Amino acid sequence: MRAAFNIAKTADFRLVRPNPLVGAVVASSDGNILGEGCHEKFGAAHAEVNAIQNALKHTNDLSACTLYVTLEPCSHQGKTPPCTDFIMRNGIKKVVMGSSDPNPLVSGATVLKEAGVNVEVHNYPALLDMNREFFVNQLHQRPYVVLKMATTIDGKIADRNGKSKWLSNEESRIYVHEHLRTEADAILTTYHTVLKDNAQLTIRKSDGSVLDKDIIIIDRDFQLLKPENAGLSIFKSHPHSTIFLFGLHKHMNDVPKNVKIIFTDFDQEGNIKLDAMLKMLLEQKHYKILVEAGSKLATQMMIHDCIDEMKLFVAPVVFLDNQAISIFNHDHYTSLLDTKKFQLSGVHPFASDVLLSYVKKSL
Amino acid sequence: MRAAFNIAKTADFRLVRPNPLVGAVVASSDGNILGEGCHEKFGAAHAEVNAIQNALKHTNDLSACTLYVTLEPCSHQGKTPPCTDFIMRNGIKKVVMGSSDPNPLVSGATVLKEAGVNVEVHNYPALLDMNREFFVNQLHQRPYVVLKMATTIDGKIADRNGKSKWLSNEESRIYVHEHLRTEADAILTTYHTVLKDNAQLTIRKSDGSVLDKDIIIIDRDFQLLKPENAGLSIFKSHPHSTIFLFGLHKHMNDVPKNVKIIFTDFDQEGNIKLDAMLKMLLEQKHYKILVEAGSKLATQMMIHDCIDEMKLFVAPVVFLDNQAISIFNHDHYTSLLDTKKFQLSGVHPFASDVLLSYVKKSL
Repeated sequence: MRAAFNIAKTADFRLVRPNPLVGAVVASSDGNILGEGCHEKFGAAHAEVNAIQNALKHTNDLSACTLYVTLEPCSHQGKTPPCTDFIMRNGIKKVVMGSSDPNPLVSGATVLKEAGVNVEVHNYPALLDMNREFFVNQLHQRPYVVLKMATTIDGKIADRNGKSKWLSNEESRIYVHEHLRTEADAILTTYHTVLKDNAQLTIRKSDGSVLDKDIIIIDRDFQLLKPENAGLSIFKSHPHSTIFLFGLHKHMNDVPKNVKIIFTDFDQEGNIKLDAMLKMLLEQKHYKILVEAGSKLATQMMIHDCIDEMKLFVAPVVFLDNQAISIFNHDHYTSLLDTKKFQLSGVHPFASDVLLSYVKKSL
Repeated sequence: MRAAFNIAKTADFRLVRPNPLVGAVVASSDGNILGEGCHEKFGAAHAEVNAIQNALKHTNDLSACTLYVTLEPCSHQGKTPPCTDFIMRNGIKKVVMGSSDPNPLVSGATVLKEAGVNVEVHNYPALLDMNREFFVNQLHQRPYVVLKMATTIDGKIADRNGKSKWLSNEESRIYVHEHLRTEADAILTTYHTVLKDNAQLTIRKSDGSVLDKDIIIIDRDFQLLKPENAGLSIFKSHPHSTIFLFGLHKHMNDVPKNVKIIFTDFDQEGNIKLDAMLKMLLEQKHYKILVEAGSKLATQMMIHDCIDEMKLFVAPVVFLDNQAISIFNHDHYTSLLDTKKFQLSGVHPFASDVLLSYVKKSL
């Protein structure tokens, strides 16, 4: 399984996504590896097929072999034929799976068992970790959500008047552009954040070029479509992408060409119904989104357990002011046992800032 | 100067303190190093003397040589005779100093200049950093103060009822004992912290042994001396050290043998007058203290700019609760410009906790 894990990681996840990284190994009864393979590219052959085909170069008889595969093989016709058929057709009698596939269309373990194949299913944490985005997409039918925040040492994101510009340093901001924004399919924000900083939310590359990605803006009353906001930078800075405005149904006039209006529900407190919005975003092929907003949206998402990863840039300053705005702000008693649990996944100093990366403890 | 800096660091600061680390180099007119030396031990010869004595093994005539020394040479009789005398007696005509000595008794630069020696004084940040404790002791006439806190990702140290026990993990706690408590001369806390957890504040070593250090407790009304508190662990766990109780003058009965009462001033809000207390602690040879207390004392010390170093253990949890207790808690408007400035000095993951170390930006 370790060999299968290692070969899985040789693929470039950017070519594979939204599929997961998968590796497979065919081993002889005495434990020698006869063939290995990975899923190299979205739409291309699955890892099991590649591994079996490589093994067939050495021997015609795989009946005494075991197939180790990091993820449960597919049993349905997708971009490629079902892997379970290919496994059985080649006479493999034992399959060990490193993780089960959460997609209900995939029932490879059951199909193989029913056909008399000896099946072992594990759920190794390292294999779940390798494909966190895929598992979140499948399990929760929503994008993988990354929350980015710039905070002080004492957990404040803005002064009590909401001022926060340039809290983090230049090195941190470069990382946001070159990595966090670049690696997301879209950026989620609120009309308030866009208005406050006249934010562009583009990707400034180190070579001076500027790229734009889809932007999702929560804007219940379509404030951004008011005539006085027609000059906002965001409308001009997104010529190659779409700005999705999520709001309540109301009569409206002109909508800029790169803006797509989506009518959705809000609760009585004015909070968007997150589940519906996130499901819609996944349907729009936004597999991974970066949240760049204020405390209110971050808190709502945290309460609903839909922050999969946090990227906190901690600036080397202390606010002291207990009315300065905190990262999260929920007036609800929480005990030490009820805290939201994360796992430290990385630590990265940028001069005197430090980036703390966390992933959600349970998928 | 780089050579002098490097030789300074070869000494063990634990043997040297409360003196600073100092290195010196005697260089010929063509830039060759003829002798070098450092201050090796408290009470032993100063770096300049060692460097000059080593140079004299190569030549009798140092009149064309330059002395590079990381700290301004002393000009007064201390544990050893004044270094300025020794420099002049050996005919050295040029002295370059990497940092000036903040002790008013030390006026080596002036003494040498008046004797016709060519003197250059710098204040290189790396040299100030190397002796931060010494400079703080000298400049501010108080101990070097290290604040230790265990916080959540969102800057909370306890739930809204003050519960905080075991927020940080075992690896973090080992580090507190083996490093932070071990390296301080005393631990500063409040009666409230002692009462809340029945804290022992000892040093548990990895070999199972337990050491005790001086404890300083702010206890305005001498609550800990009330009969009902006689059984507190702290009185039993400090057989080899002293517990200093800082409070207001009041009639009192029995005082345990290892307790020393110190009467001091408090302001109208019940806060101890920090300056007086810290000055007294330095006089008691507490050159470096570790603060392990709650938000109130931490905030007071931060407001008064007397936190020289922060050690924050960040646990991988989020509280969300805006009434949970923050690291600092001061109801006073602070703008982004008025924040307290620090510098990241280290990052150390302990499993899923991370220790962020900061030093004050200006000494």
